[in-house]
Amino acid sequence: MLHSDYREQNCSIARTLELIGERWTILVLREAFLGTRRFDEIQANLGIARNVLQTRLRRLLDAGIMRRELYQDRPPRYEYRLTAKGVDLWPVIVSLLNWGDRHAAPNGPPVVLEHKGCGGALDDRRRCTRCGADLEAWEVSALAGPGALDSRSRRLAPAAG
Amino acid sequence: MLHSDYREQNCSIARTLELIGERWTILVLREAFLGTRRFDEIQANLGIARNVLQTRLRRLLDAGIMRRELYQDRPPRYEYRLTAKGVDLWPVIVSLLNWGDRHAAPNGPPVVLEHKGCGGALDDRRRCTRCGADLEAWEVSALAGPGALDSRSRRLAPAAG
Repeated sequence: MLHSDYREQNCSIARTLELIGERWTILVLREAFLGTRRFDEIQANLGIARNVLQTRLRRLLDAGIMRRELYQDRPPRYEYRLTAKGVDLWPVIVSLLNWGDRHAAPNGPPVVLEHKGCGGALDDRRRCTRCGADLEAWEVSALAGPGALDSRSRRLAPAAG
Repeated sequence: MLHSDYREQNCSIARTLELIGERWTILVLREAFLGTRRFDEIQANLGIARNVLQTRLRRLLDAGIMRRELYQDRPPRYEYRLTAKGVDLWPVIVSLLNWGDRHAAPNGPPVVLEHKGCGGALDDRRRCTRCGADLEAWEVSALAGPGALDSRSRRLAPAAG
């Protein structure tokens, strides 16, 4: 819970925001969809304080949106991955991305989404503009777009399952 | 601007969150999509402090997401409406709603969306499950669902244009 303010709201939007509406949480989820799994990498990509990231990840784990998996024994180190419930947030992430590309990207989209293998773009209903398929997160790559500051091109690889 | 934290992020998601990511802002937008246009009504539906609502509305006006329109001269009173840029946030609102309905609505959806005239439901790509049409905000009604606490049924009427 953040403050208890939204509790009065019998509303699915408010309940979703209770779980993912804290500052930085959606960018933590963005990193997860881009395949970033390790604490230090997530922290470096976001440039936030470690304790803030710890709090955000703890909340996502508690909500069943992310899970952690041991990848090293001594010392114990964990990867953070989306659960199926977390992958279900993909439409939220894509709709925020689409709006920003349209209304808040003066140099063009920093990242473009592409149907893997096909090469088509995504329309605003997450369909391929080339082949018409309804696309899911794992069928899409994230590539550097015209507004990218570097040539970084990372796959959009949800870490679920 | 909130804090300057997201500024380092060359990311359309982060830029969108800079504009609509503050606490309560998305619920203010929800009210706008439900057709709530007057300050006192928005304030009553959200149950937030007037000064918080004032700050949120000011920010949405400054961002060109909402506009205000005089509806009474003495004293001057304004209605708050979505601009076209604001209506473009509909997919964000619907995706948050859908996720909450699926994962955070223990008594079922408090609100269900319906294709006006047709009566079909919306799938997670905002298509009508009955007639298959791609639906826009103005073609959809919001009705009380099984998880509603009262029988309130309000139309989803974007105030754009």
